[in-house]
Amino acid sequence: MIILFTDFGHASVYVGQVKSVLYQHAPRVRQIDLLHDAPAFNIKASAHLLAALAPQFPPDSVFLTVVDPGVGSVREAAMVFADGRWFVGPDNGLLSVVAARADKPKFWLIHWRPRKLSHTFHGRDLFAPIAAFIAKDEFPHDKMDETTSLRVQLGAQDLAEIIYIDNYGNAMTGMRAKSLKFDNQLLVHGGRLRRATIFADVPGGTPFWYENCVGLAEIAISSGNAAQELDLKIGDAVEVVK
Amino acid sequence: MIILFTDFGHASVYVGQVKSVLYQHAPRVRQIDLLHDAPAFNIKASAHLLAALAPQFPPDSVFLTVVDPGVGSVREAAMVFADGRWFVGPDNGLLSVVAARADKPKFWLIHWRPRKLSHTFHGRDLFAPIAAFIAKDEFPHDKMDETTSLRVQLGAQDLAEIIYIDNYGNAMTGMRAKSLKFDNQLLVHGGRLRRATIFADVPGGTPFWYENCVGLAEIAISSGNAAQELDLKIGDAVEVVK
Amino acid sequence: MIILFTDFGHASVYVGQVKSVLYQHAPRVRQIDLLHDAPAFNIKASAHLLAALAPQFPPDSVFLTVVDPGVGSVREAAMVFADGRWFVGPDNGLLSVVAARADKPKFWLIHWRPRKLSHTFHGRDLFAPIAAFIAKDEFPHDKMDETTSLRVQLGAQDLAEIIYIDNYGNAMTGMRAKSLKFDNQLLVHGGRLRRATIFADVPGGTPFWYENCVGLAEIAISSGNAAQELDLKIGDAVEVVK
Repeated sequence: MIILFTDFGHASVYVGQVKSVLYQHAPRVRQIDLLHDAPAFNIKASAHLLAALAPQFPPDSVFLTVVDPGVGSVREAAMVFADGRWFVGPDNGLLSVVAARADKPKFWLIHWRPRKLSHTFHGRDLFAPIAAFIAKDEFPHDKMDETTSLRVQLGAQDLAEIIYIDNYGNAMTGMRAKSLKFDNQLLVHGGRLRRATIFADVPGGTPFWYENCVGLAEIAISSGNAAQELDLKIGDAVEVVK
Repeated sequence: MIILFTDFGHASVYVGQVKSVLYQHAPRVRQIDLLHDAPAFNIKASAHLLAALAPQFPPDSVFLTVVDPGVGSVREAAMVFADGRWFVGPDNGLLSVVAARADKPKFWLIHWRPRKLSHTFHGRDLFAPIAAFIAKDEFPHDKMDETTSLRVQLGAQDLAEIIYIDNYGNAMTGMRAKSLKFDNQLLVHGGRLRRATIFADVPGGTPFWYENCVGLAEIAISSGNAAQELDLKIGDAVEVVK
Repeated sequence: MIILFTDFGHASVYVGQVKSVLYQHAPRVRQIDLLHDAPAFNIKASAHLLAALAPQFPPDSVFLTVVDPGVGSVREAAMVFADGRWFVGPDNGLLSVVAARADKPKFWLIHWRPRKLSHTFHGRDLFAPIAAFIAKDEFPHDKMDETTSLRVQLGAQDLAEIIYIDNYGNAMTGMRAKSLKFDNQLLVHGGRLRRATIFADVPGGTPFWYENCVGLAEIAISSGNAAQELDLKIGDAVEVVK
């Protein structure tokens, strides 16, 4: 199973091109679109979102991850094996949160460059073929070298920022709920939010936070749109208070 | 074939998680994204849209349907067998229009709860596994009980409201064209609209209604964007006049 | 492999209906969503975008192409075989740029009409079944007649307009980079843009053009959103200057 996690835009002409390459290299492998609207240009938020989502997928899943504002510049191409899953993408920090939280991760630098390599679309020309090789269980030994770490590392610690806003206006933070105490409150844009277990526990219209479906602290309003009402944007700071 | 009909947002991180669960449970079953932008929080419009779209799919299709603002509260989980197709989702009215229009529908309450059940994401944890069992023809007898009806019923009758606006600005109503007389006009926001058979019959710029590709009365403007020009939104009332 | 290229809207209820029909007719054929946000009502831009994207896909790919504002009127339905790939869609110019640039293309008029044919959704009822037949290698001889050309022809030459804007705000033109000289500049909205090879060659904030991942001249701003900052829209004219 290949999982796509990119900032291409779900509506873009880029997704289909990548999927065609994957299909040509690995026709029997299922492809799943996890996210094509990862926060563009925001590697930090994307790295934390990826780290929260990855454990939802089974062992041996191969993640093709592209949030890559530095494509065509000097950044390296990398692969990480972390907690049973594979991650292929730019070595710009994107894979580094997953890696830092994993038990004995392994790292490779991809030195292979295809003959036809677009300056701006390594997702299609470089990362997709590598991901396909891994997914069909043909490790491309000749295309990469094992290494001891990533070049760019964001670390394992939580990110006290908004990292994703969903269709209902709920705002995920980069903080894992298990890192917080049960009575911790979140301070955002000057307002204090208490924790609730489920939406139904909170009167309509009151903002709160809760542990969301992937283990993150998420800000919501029962029967309301938290992002709109609290004016939350990706990258906004969140503070933990008692 | 599993058909996904949700309000997750096509661009959200939720769709891929559900598809991964479906794939793990039923790897050989084709998954089709019908709609991930069902009118959020609007069960009535969503139920009527689902009822209009379902007949386009072949017998034995399994619909995984999630428009579920009450997730985590007391609403039940249900399954309906209606006119040869299966529908899995919340018992909040969403499945009730399909059911009310079917010949001898059957009903089940899903009493099974998985060990790991997110308070806010029953689509992934509860409905997806059930849909997968049905789709691979392994009826989960131990997970549900047959019952005689749904708890929340919206009835079989048409809905005189806008229920969907497409990419071109055409606005679907919840009224089936066959329920209307040929010379009926539609009154919306004070304007009267005549019926036409095809766009080419109407001068450019004139609003009209016609029977759309799924049998609903739909409001359009030839060479124009009806939703913008008539200021139509989902939930707006439409009246039938002579 | 069937490639979908439409203006239905990625979030619409139309895509899933088409995919269900394709799946019923050709269950073993892979379907790839290339674009569902082709410039609606803009056949010219869509035709040039299709012509640039098609060569990214392997021989024998079948393109189901629907940008079809005249659906239900007198326009014909057509199929083109061009440089090893198949294209099924309306004969309104959409397929004509691909065809004009191909070596010895072949043409067919589709005279078949299904018993159930929506006036507004030939993508589902007419084009999808034809595309499925081609993709599963069962040429529908009884449904079409070979012909010598398309009715509507836009020609092989480049289009000096913006034809697509991506998620990052980069604006593709309908001009192939290989048609331009290396020192050509582009004039758009009164501003002159030089060519660069890669983003990293250009100071942040400076607009430029470069050969994009499908061979087109594309306008971008390093570390910026060109479409917003230069106020670019699909259809805007671009001029080549020395």
